[in-house]
Amino acid sequence: MAIAVDAMGGDSPLTVQVEAAVQAVNDFGIEVILVGAEAQIDQKLKLYSYDQQKLRIANSTEIVEMNESPATALRQKKNSSIRVAVDLVKAGEADAVVSAGNTGASMATAKFVLKSVEGIERPAIASLMPSVHRNHPFVLLDVGANTDCKPLYLFQFALMGDAYARTYLHLENPRVALLNVGEEEGKGYLDLKETYDLLKQSTLNFTGNIEGKAMFKDRVDVVVCDGFIGNIALKVAEGTFDFVRSILREEVQSSWISKLGYLAMKAPFRALRRRADYSEVGGAPLLGVNGVVIICHGNSKVHTFRNAIKHAQECAEQKLNSKIATEVSENLEVIKQAKQLNLER
Amino acid sequence: MAIAVDAMGGDSPLTVQVEAAVQAVNDFGIEVILVGAEAQIDQKLKLYSYDQQKLRIANSTEIVEMNESPATALRQKKNSSIRVAVDLVKAGEADAVVSAGNTGASMATAKFVLKSVEGIERPAIASLMPSVHRNHPFVLLDVGANTDCKPLYLFQFALMGDAYARTYLHLENPRVALLNVGEEEGKGYLDLKETYDLLKQSTLNFTGNIEGKAMFKDRVDVVVCDGFIGNIALKVAEGTFDFVRSILREEVQSSWISKLGYLAMKAPFRALRRRADYSEVGGAPLLGVNGVVIICHGNSKVHTFRNAIKHAQECAEQKLNSKIATEVSENLEVIKQAKQLNLER
Repeated sequence: MAIAVDAMGGDSPLTVQVEAAVQAVNDFGIEVILVGAEAQIDQKLKLYSYDQQKLRIANSTEIVEMNESPATALRQKKNSSIRVAVDLVKAGEADAVVSAGNTGASMATAKFVLKSVEGIERPAIASLMPSVHRNHPFVLLDVGANTDCKPLYLFQFALMGDAYARTYLHLENPRVALLNVGEEEGKGYLDLKETYDLLKQSTLNFTGNIEGKAMFKDRVDVVVCDGFIGNIALKVAEGTFDFVRSILREEVQSSWISKLGYLAMKAPFRALRRRADYSEVGGAPLLGVNGVVIICHGNSKVHTFRNAIKHAQECAEQKLNSKIATEVSENLEVIKQAKQLNLER
Repeated sequence: MAIAVDAMGGDSPLTVQVEAAVQAVNDFGIEVILVGAEAQIDQKLKLYSYDQQKLRIANSTEIVEMNESPATALRQKKNSSIRVAVDLVKAGEADAVVSAGNTGASMATAKFVLKSVEGIERPAIASLMPSVHRNHPFVLLDVGANTDCKPLYLFQFALMGDAYARTYLHLENPRVALLNVGEEEGKGYLDLKETYDLLKQSTLNFTGNIEGKAMFKDRVDVVVCDGFIGNIALKVAEGTFDFVRSILREEVQSSWISKLGYLAMKAPFRALRRRADYSEVGGAPLLGVNGVVIICHGNSKVHTFRNAIKHAQECAEQKLNSKIATEVSENLEVIKQAKQLNLER
C-alpha cells in the first residue's frame, strides 16, 4: 500500500510536503510516492535520512496554480503533480492521494480520473468538527463540493458520512442528523423535508434534525448539509475560534493579573486548541471517488500534512470505499425513491 | 413615543417582562405599554415603584403558545398579547413592539397587520454579530425569516441592513458584503452571482463577497445572506462559543495552577462575553415592516429584555423605517432590474 503525495501544491510546495513525507515514512512506516519535479524533490530529500525502500519519486512537469480554474487545469495540464498522483491511484500503483494544492482542481481531477463509487452521484468533502466528546469529533459534510443539493445527493452524503465515521472514527452506530434551523420534523426547505423522509427509511441511525448550536454538544456523529451551507458553517466556526483567540489576547493585556492568569491557563488553552482544530489537522477526505483523496489547506504545516498522509493511509487500509459501497447496497430501495423525486422536479 | 411590550411571551411570561418594563421606565425614561392579562400585570407591578405616567397596561385575553403554528395563532387568536401589541402600533398608539414570544407568530402577525415598508417585498430578521472592532458589532441578515431567497430579496436585505447599521450603529458609510464561500466575484450559486451584480450598481458601499471566517475581523458592517444560511451561521457561532466555554471549564479542573489562572482571567473572560453576546443582548429587529418590531429569545433575562425595549425605542426615535424608504427610493432602478430577474425565472 502506497500514498501518492502531491509535492507541488499549497503555499510552500516541496518544503512542507517532502519533510512531511519523510516523517510519515519514519514515524508511521507508511510507503510514500512523492509526485513532482524530480530533481527538486531529490535535492530536498538529501537533507533527511529515511528508509529508501519506502519513499520514491514520480516525476511530473506541470503545476496547477492555486487560483487556476479547475476545468482549465484538468484539460490543459495532464502532467501536473495532482494529475500524475491521481493517475497513480487509477493505475493501482498508489491507494490514496494527499494534496494541499488547488482544491477545485484536485476535486475535478479525482472525479474525472477515478470516477464515483458505484451508486454515488456526487462526491463530497467531509470535515471533522469539534465536539465536547472527549475522544472524537463529529463529521460534517458536504463542506465544499456541491451547492443546491437535491435529496438524492444529501441522502448519499449521509451514507458516505456514516461509512467514514465507522471507518475512521471507529464508531459502531454513528448518530446521523440533518443540519436544519429547528429540530422538529418539517423544518427547512423542501429538499430537506424530503431528505428527512428518505433518512427515516434508511438503515442509518438517523436522529432527525440538528441545529447549528447543538451539533457541538456530542449529540451527533454525522451532520449532513449542502456544500454551500457546510462551507459557511465550517468557516463560521473557524472565524469564531479566531475571534475568541484575538479578543482574549487583546483583553489579557489590560492587567498584570490577567497576564499571569493567561500563563497559568496554558494547559487548558492548549487542550482547547487540540480539541478545536480537528478540521485543520489531518486534512479533509473527498468521499465517494474510487480511491482515497485527502485535501489539505494550502497553508498546511508539516505536522498537519504528515497527519493527512496517515489519515489517507488509514482510510485506504480500512477500506472506506467498500464500506460506502455496502451502505449503498443496503439502501437501494431508498436511493431508487430519491431518484424518482429527482425526476419529478 | 411608546413601546408596546408583549408581557405574555417567552419562557417566563409576566415576570421578566414586567420587571424589564419597569427598568426601562426608570433607567431610560421610556414610555411603555405592557400588553397582557391586566389583573396579573397589575399584581406584579405592585412590587415596583416607577413613574405611573410612563407605564400603562393594555389588556389581552389570549396567549400564543411557544410551539403553536404561526398561521393558526394569526387566524384564531385575535386577542393574543402579540396581536394586541402589534395592533397598538398599527393604530398609532405605540411606535414599536418587543416580544420574547413565539418568533414565527410575532413575525407573521407583524407582517400581516403592519404590512411591509413600500418597496420591500420580504421583511428580514437582523442579528448583531461580534466583531474584533472595539466599539461595534456587525449586522447579519436574514437570520430566520426567509429561505430560498431570490436576488430581489437579498438586495432588499442589503438596503435594510445598511439603513439599520446607519441608524442603530451610527455608521456613516457601512461596508456591505455578501456571505459566500469565496471572495472572488462569480463564487456561489446563481442567485448570489446576480445579487452581486445588483449590489455593484447600488448606492451602497458594497465591498464584495465575504467568507464566514473573515466576517468577524472588522472587514464588514453588514453581511447579507438568505435566512436559512444566516440562521445556521448565527447558531454555529453561538455553538462555537458554548463549546469554548465548556471545554475551558472542563480543562481548567486539571490542575490548581490553571484554576488560579482562570480566576485571574476573570476580567478578560468577562470582556469576551460582553463582546461576543451582541446577538443575545437587546433582541433582533424584524426589518421592513411598518413599525419597529424587536424579537427576543424566549429565555431572555430581565437585563436583555430591558435592553430590547431601549433598542426598540432607539430604532423608532431615529426613524429607521424612513431611512429604509430612502434607500429604496435611491435604488429604484436596481430594484426594477431585480424584479425583471424574478420574472425571467
